[in-house]
Amino acid sequence: MSVDLVVRNCTVVTPAGRTPDAGVAVEDGTIVAVGKSDRLPDADRVLDGEGKVLVPGIVDGHIHNREPGLEYKEDWESATRAAAAGGVTTVVGMPNTDPVIDRPEHLELKFDRGEASAHVDFQSYVVVTSENIALIPELDEAGAIGYKIFLGSTVGDVPPPNDGEILEAMEKIRKTGKRLGFHEENGEIIDHYTEQFKAAGKNDPIDHSHSRPVIAEQEAVERMLTFAEETGAKIHMFHVSSGSAAEAVARGKDRGIDVTAETCPHYLWFTEDVMREKGNPARIQPPIRDAEEQATLWEVGIDEGAIDSIATDHAPHTPEEKKVDDPFGNTWDAISGFVGLETEVPALLTFVNEGRLTLEEWVRRHSTRPAQIWGLYPKKGSLQVGTDADFTIVDPDLEWTLEDSDDLHSKNCVTPFVGESFTGKAVSTVVRGEVVYEDGDVVGESGYGTRVDVDDV
Amino acid sequence: MSVDLVVRNCTVVTPAGRTPDAGVAVEDGTIVAVGKSDRLPDADRVLDGEGKVLVPGIVDGHIHNREPGLEYKEDWESATRAAAAGGVTTVVGMPNTDPVIDRPEHLELKFDRGEASAHVDFQSYVVVTSENIALIPELDEAGAIGYKIFLGSTVGDVPPPNDGEILEAMEKIRKTGKRLGFHEENGEIIDHYTEQFKAAGKNDPIDHSHSRPVIAEQEAVERMLTFAEETGAKIHMFHVSSGSAAEAVARGKDRGIDVTAETCPHYLWFTEDVMREKGNPARIQPPIRDAEEQATLWEVGIDEGAIDSIATDHAPHTPEEKKVDDPFGNTWDAISGFVGLETEVPALLTFVNEGRLTLEEWVRRHSTRPAQIWGLYPKKGSLQVGTDADFTIVDPDLEWTLEDSDDLHSKNCVTPFVGESFTGKAVSTVVRGEVVYEDGDVVGESGYGTRVDVDDV
Amino acid sequence: MSVDLVVRNCTVVTPAGRTPDAGVAVEDGTIVAVGKSDRLPDADRVLDGEGKVLVPGIVDGHIHNREPGLEYKEDWESATRAAAAGGVTTVVGMPNTDPVIDRPEHLELKFDRGEASAHVDFQSYVVVTSENIALIPELDEAGAIGYKIFLGSTVGDVPPPNDGEILEAMEKIRKTGKRLGFHEENGEIIDHYTEQFKAAGKNDPIDHSHSRPVIAEQEAVERMLTFAEETGAKIHMFHVSSGSAAEAVARGKDRGIDVTAETCPHYLWFTEDVMREKGNPARIQPPIRDAEEQATLWEVGIDEGAIDSIATDHAPHTPEEKKVDDPFGNTWDAISGFVGLETEVPALLTFVNEGRLTLEEWVRRHSTRPAQIWGLYPKKGSLQVGTDADFTIVDPDLEWTLEDSDDLHSKNCVTPFVGESFTGKAVSTVVRGEVVYEDGDVVGESGYGTRVDVDDV
Amino acid sequence: MSVDLVVRNCTVVTPAGRTPDAGVAVEDGTIVAVGKSDRLPDADRVLDGEGKVLVPGIVDGHIHNREPGLEYKEDWESATRAAAAGGVTTVVGMPNTDPVIDRPEHLELKFDRGEASAHVDFQSYVVVTSENIALIPELDEAGAIGYKIFLGSTVGDVPPPNDGEILEAMEKIRKTGKRLGFHEENGEIIDHYTEQFKAAGKNDPIDHSHSRPVIAEQEAVERMLTFAEETGAKIHMFHVSSGSAAEAVARGKDRGIDVTAETCPHYLWFTEDVMREKGNPARIQPPIRDAEEQATLWEVGIDEGAIDSIATDHAPHTPEEKKVDDPFGNTWDAISGFVGLETEVPALLTFVNEGRLTLEEWVRRHSTRPAQIWGLYPKKGSLQVGTDADFTIVDPDLEWTLEDSDDLHSKNCVTPFVGESFTGKAVSTVVRGEVVYEDGDVVGESGYGTRVDVDDV
Ligand SMILES: [Zn+2]
Ligand SMILES: [Zn+2]
Ligand SMILES: [Zn+2]
Ligand SMILES: [Zn+2]
Ligand SMILES: [Zn+2]
Ligand SMILES: [Zn+2]
Ligand SMILES: [Zn+2]
Ligand SMILES: [Zn+2]
Repeated sequence: MSVDLVVRNCTVVTPAGRTPDAGVAVEDGTIVAVGKSDRLPDADRVLDGEGKVLVPGIVDGHIHNREPGLEYKEDWESATRAAAAGGVTTVVGMPNTDPVIDRPEHLELKFDRGEASAHVDFQSYVVVTSENIALIPELDEAGAIGYKIFLGSTVGDVPPPNDGEILEAMEKIRKTGKRLGFHEENGEIIDHYTEQFKAAGKNDPIDHSHSRPVIAEQEAVERMLTFAEETGAKIHMFHVSSGSAAEAVARGKDRGIDVTAETCPHYLWFTEDVMREKGNPARIQPPIRDAEEQATLWEVGIDEGAIDSIATDHAPHTPEEKKVDDPFGNTWDAISGFVGLETEVPALLTFVNEGRLTLEEWVRRHSTRPAQIWGLYPKKGSLQVGTDADFTIVDPDLEWTLEDSDDLHSKNCVTPFVGESFTGKAVSTVVRGEVVYEDGDVVGESGYGTRVDVDDV
Repeated sequence: MSVDLVVRNCTVVTPAGRTPDAGVAVEDGTIVAVGKSDRLPDADRVLDGEGKVLVPGIVDGHIHNREPGLEYKEDWESATRAAAAGGVTTVVGMPNTDPVIDRPEHLELKFDRGEASAHVDFQSYVVVTSENIALIPELDEAGAIGYKIFLGSTVGDVPPPNDGEILEAMEKIRKTGKRLGFHEENGEIIDHYTEQFKAAGKNDPIDHSHSRPVIAEQEAVERMLTFAEETGAKIHMFHVSSGSAAEAVARGKDRGIDVTAETCPHYLWFTEDVMREKGNPARIQPPIRDAEEQATLWEVGIDEGAIDSIATDHAPHTPEEKKVDDPFGNTWDAISGFVGLETEVPALLTFVNEGRLTLEEWVRRHSTRPAQIWGLYPKKGSLQVGTDADFTIVDPDLEWTLEDSDDLHSKNCVTPFVGESFTGKAVSTVVRGEVVYEDGDVVGESGYGTRVDVDDV
Repeated sequence: MSVDLVVRNCTVVTPAGRTPDAGVAVEDGTIVAVGKSDRLPDADRVLDGEGKVLVPGIVDGHIHNREPGLEYKEDWESATRAAAAGGVTTVVGMPNTDPVIDRPEHLELKFDRGEASAHVDFQSYVVVTSENIALIPELDEAGAIGYKIFLGSTVGDVPPPNDGEILEAMEKIRKTGKRLGFHEENGEIIDHYTEQFKAAGKNDPIDHSHSRPVIAEQEAVERMLTFAEETGAKIHMFHVSSGSAAEAVARGKDRGIDVTAETCPHYLWFTEDVMREKGNPARIQPPIRDAEEQATLWEVGIDEGAIDSIATDHAPHTPEEKKVDDPFGNTWDAISGFVGLETEVPALLTFVNEGRLTLEEWVRRHSTRPAQIWGLYPKKGSLQVGTDADFTIVDPDLEWTLEDSDDLHSKNCVTPFVGESFTGKAVSTVVRGEVVYEDGDVVGESGYGTRVDVDDV
Repeated sequence: MSVDLVVRNCTVVTPAGRTPDAGVAVEDGTIVAVGKSDRLPDADRVLDGEGKVLVPGIVDGHIHNREPGLEYKEDWESATRAAAAGGVTTVVGMPNTDPVIDRPEHLELKFDRGEASAHVDFQSYVVVTSENIALIPELDEAGAIGYKIFLGSTVGDVPPPNDGEILEAMEKIRKTGKRLGFHEENGEIIDHYTEQFKAAGKNDPIDHSHSRPVIAEQEAVERMLTFAEETGAKIHMFHVSSGSAAEAVARGKDRGIDVTAETCPHYLWFTEDVMREKGNPARIQPPIRDAEEQATLWEVGIDEGAIDSIATDHAPHTPEEKKVDDPFGNTWDAISGFVGLETEVPALLTFVNEGRLTLEEWVRRHSTRPAQIWGLYPKKGSLQVGTDADFTIVDPDLEWTLEDSDDLHSKNCVTPFVGESFTGKAVSTVVRGEVVYEDGDVVGESGYGTRVDVDDV
């Protein structure tokens, strides 16, 4: 009796180590064996990995899929098409859509849209605002993966709750057992300097960066740590951009607070000089930092371990919104954010190639840990027998350059990574045993992807 | 040639130690000798200390003298009359008067009023608000002792600047070399819980306490520490009420931040049970805490040294404002604050008598350190030859009870210390060589007190 | 083409998680597949796990196999017979034999003896003394797994090198890349108190414990940490017995020192009261500590993670040497140490059953981490495809009592665990694909076990 | 009625601040007034300070007066003659004389010799060895100022007790309330490297330095801290020579251990390059360190405060013993130590002149703190009225060079400070109201100096 799929002739890598000339067997969407190539069962379909590297499917805990409501930027179909092409098997969408995901029915709407069109598996955060604190238990019941609070104004203009409301929300969230993540920039500081810069006529792309100083991020991290210590809530720091914030996270971990933290490829790849070189397309919030902050982010965040996970903050906007035609024009007319789903694996594999982290450490931060942080492990993020057959095959030696953003699969593909050269790329993506991407093509069906049920894990 | 005044037959106590059968000689308002009683020069006037304790004059860095504008509560004359009677030789007035002290001309007005009527020496803080950040250098020039920011709404309703403005203000204040103190309660937290409590019909005096939780104070301390670390500004925490806040101050000192901190006698003397026993007259902001927080305040603040100085937060209001006739009536109709200038020395001497701190440690925190913190040392806060002849003679063994608030010298004398029994009291107060209080009477002239010139020290 | 062996119908547990109804396939002594029971390849031999738990083979990094020279106590055959019966697939022997393992030819002798008679795989430490520091590189070449220094006198009386020699040895060991472990008791302290106790006529078994106070262990840990920080050597603390020593290890890890630490089942199971209840048979060095130290060992060592690994310190002696017939007789005539290979898995599974640690955490500390610490991973300590097919099947629910030490397989079986009741036991032991223990019998061949080649991993 | 002595026209400096145009009045050896020059009482003798600086008499807590038994090097008369000439009013002698001061009768002998011939006040440590632990209470009764343990072999070859004996000694010393100081070099490390260096034919003066590495000092500090934490004993680190040891002291203070520490002028003035420039005359134990260690000693020790006090380790030897005629000859034939009593005040005043510490900070570490550490305060180390009239008048602006060691007052005057230039010098020394040094001459009587009675303070 043969199984559905066998992949053979790979080096299988997990955080625990690596095995050459091996592969996995899949039946009914589940891993039924991991073994040496010639000791895997017969299969209806056999993929030859040609010696490449097979890892647990990449889990991206931070994307903006834009649907419902902002489909002119991106939708579930296009976002998960990009995910499949990038080697990402699970994505978690941010709640700053239209409507914002702040009520059970909005979450249901978002889930329904995803079920209808996604190529890979997905989930969604729900936002907490001044208006919906009482709904926190219901939002848990409705199946959200976790909660999100925007501490300062950013894209989508979801107004931040005040500190009293945050404390009250944390008390309620603690009881759900789920985790609360933050857009951690102190709103008063960034608003103050933004106004001051505008008044002073400072409007270059780099001025946008400087209007949101590191102290705004560091202070927001510290304040949330103190509130988490007070309430016992589990918290997460999205898109940590600076070494100073990573150091604050490390101090919080030392105090015994249950805090996890993520950073994004662009903070590790670029310094703020990119604003002077590429201008508004590289605009993002929090901004890309200077070389000194970046060095500390690598040292304290990656080498010493303050940063748990990698995610993209994939945030598509139209070329007009990004002022692509006027990259050094008045930055206050441009919008923040850019796509990333198809460059995150290449960026990280390039770092591996440079010896800045090992394959095992990459897999840990890009698959296993995000799955653990958000309650999806071991269903996602492992290659354990009996779990979802999500895996990504990468070629760690492939040298290539992102020549044109049109080579990407999102609806809008502005990114500062255009023109950058990489060593490494995802070549096949498998979700619950189905090959959704191979040979450069997204081959999965729209609508195959499904919501990961957090209650079951 | 005889000097103006000699005090003899005292035990002279400074932070460095104590000498029995000794005293000081004064000429032209300045100490010209400290010596054994029989080795001091001849004098026009000789006071016999009768074996009591002579210490450098008490410096109270936190009073509300209410003038200009709120003279129905208190004025410079009445506040400094109480100071003289309490053994306090220098007071620093808070800026939440009417007008608030936010411009050079308001400061000048406040100084002029003080020059006209004060019994003891004085100074004043200037407030920093959203509106006057640009005036920070001018306010320095105008002679302010330091700066004050209200982080949350409290008596006087001076609106807090936002965090961006605070950062900007700190940059400017750092350049003046002066120190910035805070009413450190997170405004969003206390406003949130106050509204919630009111909506829930909770209106007992103890509910006022609980509407301003410790976390609001702790978080405010931590945030200001981070901003001070960022800007290099010197900061001060007024009226630290809780052990948790004292621990935050200790962590800040460990990080090398130039932070100083004060607490008040009522936080060391009472626990929150006083709200259930005495009601609205004991209402104050930040509120008096529970026994556990108080124990940590003693341990971390006093025993281990996180708290530098003692001050009263002397804050007179009329009996009607304090709801004296309805002590357990709706607390939201009552006002916060009470007088303290005449009970601070007795409270601290009682602690000395109980063995909770030494005479030397008391003098250090109640005279020397506040003078150092605010730039008045050694002119004030020492008994060094050549400095102002400010000193206080106390009887550390006198047992007495504050039977009636009418025995006090302020215009309005509501205080929860009525009915409390003490061991110790100031018996004579000398300011620049003039006896301003003795034998139970304020004997100094109104208008003798003068502004301490910070620029000269 | 069928493989050699398949085990099916187990719950497979590794530090990364657990899979029910699963098993492993083995060929040529290597794991070739891990999979669901019905998706494993055909095999010459199929074992039915009957729903029990299969884990990577237990690695015991601390036994005294006594051969060469002390075969009247134990030898390679008997020690590894006990290991097989206890579910242990790899053991590392201590060097305090006769001759002591301090020269390449002695190590070769020890290896040869093991090759001739062992039932499971093995390795050996080499000792560092004042006499052989120059031989450190040669001992590395000769294939030792790591180095051992006795800081204080203990069984075998290997004299401690002085602190200068230790520094010099660490410099040399750092260059080999191998790790240096310690019997960490300050010799001067234990000798001093031992003499004092003897002189005072204190000779009860509990007096032996108190003659080797916790401070002797704590100080030795701290001193070696400082030397490791100075030299960059990797160090290991064998048999940490006290919470105070675990706290010292934790401080060392915080300082960034590459230190690992082990504890033994008896320190977690018994308190020093066992000396009053069972007497000399429970005598060991370092001694079993009081309840307070044990509580801290659990909290700081196990819960917070200062302790990396579990090992037995399996140390057989004859009943005469242990004074079994006179358990409360003069303790200075008794010897320290007792067997443990057959009670370590039961003790740990009992803790799992009591909810004090998870199955995953047990496997991590009893198999994966010791293999990593001593350079055997992933060959040993994992269930990764392509590595040695070492695994242990345990019944975590089996309740039993060690009625009689004769039920054990060592040559001499004195142990204070006689009379203790357990929940859990090893039921089958597999070494490189060969079943060496099943159905209560050691079925492997003497001489099958082989030296693990550290150079190859 | 006039007093015995008045000094006027000085700037009086204490740790609390400074007063110009002031002075002190003395009667019966006691300070009876501190005052402005013209407000001091009439006196039989009036000294004009000519605007110089008057400070509390310098207290040197670490000298080797060599008597009894080694009078060919130095004796009480010559050592205290040098002290008077150096501005030092109290000295404490080390116990490594002949006989060593290890019994009450030896202490009595040392005291008697001092009473017979000293120019300034004095005290003595008693040594603790393996032989006299039981005598600790008696040595307290006999009036010793404190205890000393030599942890490694140094001049005098007092054998170190073992760690068990040290623990036992600390328990006993804790009960006396007195403090225990150390020659803190790990004996095993320095002996090991000394032998190794000798065997290797390394015999330059710099080799002596390197044979006693910093780790030997750091480890000894850490071990004693751990023993003090265990026993509750108060401890002191003599002659801290390195930044690493200062950091260890700082960690101990953070752990709440009652540890104090001293450094010596030569560690702050010279780097180890002096061994290459001046050779054997600069040989000392612990040795003078390299520039990096010195920089940390300044930063952590002086600027951040880990070092409490300054002392000389004044250690006279004959020119022959110091190999003055063969400064770069075989260093193993030379002896360690050199004189310092007449260069310590100049060295520190030179640092003050360079802005490396303030006059107040100098006085604190060179007079007030050593007096407090050893229980002499405020009798010594203050200018408080009623205490001993010990003071030193210094000219902080005097530039001079130590041209010739014969300009010094010890019996043997070898010192590496010959040839060094200073800014600042003691000009008058007063002990209990008697001028013992002025105008370049020791004018006090031999035998005037007396033992400071510790029991009385
Ligand atoms: Zn964001
Ligand atoms: Zn985002
Ligand atoms: Zn306030
Ligand atoms: Zn106030
Ligand atoms: Zn051992
Ligand atoms: Zn052992
Ligand atoms: Zn010494
Ligand atoms: Zn010495």
